[in-house]
Amino acid sequence: MSALIERVRAVRSRDDAVAIDRDDVLAGKREAFLLPAGVIYLDGNSLGPLTKSAAAQVERTTTIEWGEGLIRSWNTADWIHLPRTIAAKIAPLIGTSAHNVVVTDSTSVNLFKVLSAALDKAEPGRRVLLSEPGNFPTDLYIADSAAALKGAELRLAEDIEGALSDDVAVVMLTQVDYRTGLKRDMAALTHCVHAAGALAVWDLAHSAGAFPVALDAAGADFAVGCGYKYLNGGPGAPAFVFASDRHLDVKQPLSGWFAHAEPFAFERTFRPADGIARFLTGTAPVLSMSALSAALDAFADVDLRSVREKSVALCELMIALVEARCADHVRLASPREPHRRGSQVSFHCEEGYAVMQALIAQGVIGDFRAPDILRFGMAPLYVSYVDVFDAAAALADILATRSWDREAFRARAAVT
Amino acid sequence: MSALIERVRAVRSRDDAVAIDRDDVLAGKREAFLLPAGVIYLDGNSLGPLTKSAAAQVERTTTIEWGEGLIRSWNTADWIHLPRTIAAKIAPLIGTSAHNVVVTDSTSVNLFKVLSAALDKAEPGRRVLLSEPGNFPTDLYIADSAAALKGAELRLAEDIEGALSDDVAVVMLTQVDYRTGLKRDMAALTHCVHAAGALAVWDLAHSAGAFPVALDAAGADFAVGCGYKYLNGGPGAPAFVFASDRHLDVKQPLSGWFAHAEPFAFERTFRPADGIARFLTGTAPVLSMSALSAALDAFADVDLRSVREKSVALCELMIALVEARCADHVRLASPREPHRRGSQVSFHCEEGYAVMQALIAQGVIGDFRAPDILRFGMAPLYVSYVDVFDAAAALADILATRSWDREAFRARAAVT
Repeated sequence: MSALIERVRAVRSRDDAVAIDRDDVLAGKREAFLLPAGVIYLDGNSLGPLTKSAAAQVERTTTIEWGEGLIRSWNTADWIHLPRTIAAKIAPLIGTSAHNVVVTDSTSVNLFKVLSAALDKAEPGRRVLLSEPGNFPTDLYIADSAAALKGAELRLAEDIEGALSDDVAVVMLTQVDYRTGLKRDMAALTHCVHAAGALAVWDLAHSAGAFPVALDAAGADFAVGCGYKYLNGGPGAPAFVFASDRHLDVKQPLSGWFAHAEPFAFERTFRPADGIARFLTGTAPVLSMSALSAALDAFADVDLRSVREKSVALCELMIALVEARCADHVRLASPREPHRRGSQVSFHCEEGYAVMQALIAQGVIGDFRAPDILRFGMAPLYVSYVDVFDAAAALADILATRSWDREAFRARAAVT
Repeated sequence: MSALIERVRAVRSRDDAVAIDRDDVLAGKREAFLLPAGVIYLDGNSLGPLTKSAAAQVERTTTIEWGEGLIRSWNTADWIHLPRTIAAKIAPLIGTSAHNVVVTDSTSVNLFKVLSAALDKAEPGRRVLLSEPGNFPTDLYIADSAAALKGAELRLAEDIEGALSDDVAVVMLTQVDYRTGLKRDMAALTHCVHAAGALAVWDLAHSAGAFPVALDAAGADFAVGCGYKYLNGGPGAPAFVFASDRHLDVKQPLSGWFAHAEPFAFERTFRPADGIARFLTGTAPVLSMSALSAALDAFADVDLRSVREKSVALCELMIALVEARCADHVRLASPREPHRRGSQVSFHCEEGYAVMQALIAQGVIGDFRAPDILRFGMAPLYVSYVDVFDAAAALADILATRSWDREAFRARAAVT
């Protein structure tokens, strides 16, 4: 156990947390974010907050690049290369090279592309797309659809390793479970998938920016990920696609003009761009792209190992404080072992929806996931140890005073 | 011939153009736009300019809704309903009801959805997707792909009516040709397509916002369209999907969580939303959506018949002036009859690329399309008769003095 983990487990007072913040090498990063006063934000795994850099860039892109530059900005402001320049900022966060990543569309749309491409690449005769029943629902909806169009079958199994029969073409997994925060061993699972003769497709929605991801080292075949969670790209920020060097020659079914070798040659016949650009489709939403691009600058000088170290410590502190003070009302839903968790802590709580509404009304913003999960995302660039201390104290107070019914009612009334 | 057309054809001096502007009922609309000084913008059919309303809304969405509201803004700022609230603003521009339109993804991605759905709906045994060889290339690339996945065949014919054999399932047409501005008779062609037992899918990229479109009256089955041209939604603004009442029950292959009846129930099994929302896929890029939403307010009090009347007059003025002064160098590429044109004028010009660069260097922004087309988009909300007079004068001057070689060289040097 690291000295930091020992120290957070020993926190007894707010001053103890303040002292850890004082020694936090990432503490200064909070300055990059425009967090509202009076809010403790533990929902960056749903929507990362605004950075100063993104706010300034969106203004520049809107008023100068669009407003003054007009159509010329496709070249002069280099909008045309945004899918690649943003990808180059994401690549080091996910353990690969810039030429393996491109930023485009939504995670769901991109998943359709990579699943279709992966099924095309699978060994002949293998017609099963394997995933887990607890995967994020949209991934399963898209997988259903891609499998049907490709003459394959979506099969779901709790025990992926046990289900790797010789008809499995592709395995689709999300690295971090959106409810519990359970984190898969990407390298080990990819190895098993390959040993069984199948390809591995990873969804990095709750991984990218949360901890070091090592796609190349794991040998992953394809991946998709989300721009608006730990990458802080803004609401509905464009997503990304990864394809390994082995798969830069694939076809994908949403090959629009930006996937063409020469989009502005307006050729009748589709000729795919060399490499990863073939995963593009139509015109990129530039305002949303520009926010994501600027937000990623917050990671430029960050060592992801210190992000992971702090993430683990924040989660351990949350678990320790909540279990010490709320054990009658909540039960840990996340794995207890740090190496099996992503960057969130989840608790089962019977009246979870109302409790979370009460917390939010007090400025502690977490998330509720049916049927009974309180979810707290720990984003080390802007969440402090004191934030976690105060959040746990607020939760303990709400549970001890049973104030959630009244609060939840008030919160609902305010929204509707 | 209308009095307005007679008047523009009689323009001999800049003062004549000024006088027509003085009587223009749409002249005041220019105030809604933030056009840079010294620019005549005739490229709104590539990228519409920034409106004051969009600039203000993007700032509000970024700093207040995202920055202050964070995840709560999905409800409190009603982000969740943007695909529908924006659609309600587009519906009257394309002659249909709000419940038939939804804003999402790119035109290419949406085309894949509607083509797949249309092929599913076609009469059994009909396996041909028919289009034109001159259609916008990305439409053909996507059609190739959708046809292949659905076991259909993409067939191209110059003479669509002559090619309506009994194996044709779906006909995909773009209403306005992106090079020449040729405008199809949507009602007549849709009628022929239906009479031949097929379904009609329309691409409205150069139609929506440019003139009144009448999807319902024409009996169109499906349509897609672009948010960043005449709708002024910003670079890469999200696109829209139209489905007639007859086709609100379809399945589409990119059914992600936002197409689900209850996205936040996180159900394993996909249950499509009622109606048009089933064409959604993933999370919408909210910053880009908000710009489009605000930009559309410029149309709120506009009678599209006056937009069309002015569009025709601007095009007639451009043709008359250019043909009077540049006939040695250019040749009209657009149809001569106003009712067969969209809202652009195109000319063949042998050294078109260099000529357009020279024009742009002088602040007259049009567009070049290979191999030899000068393209001028006429957006009646912000283009004036004097703009057209000055643009034609600049073109005439460049052609008369053969100044394009030098200018084009300078312009290229400035970009690279």
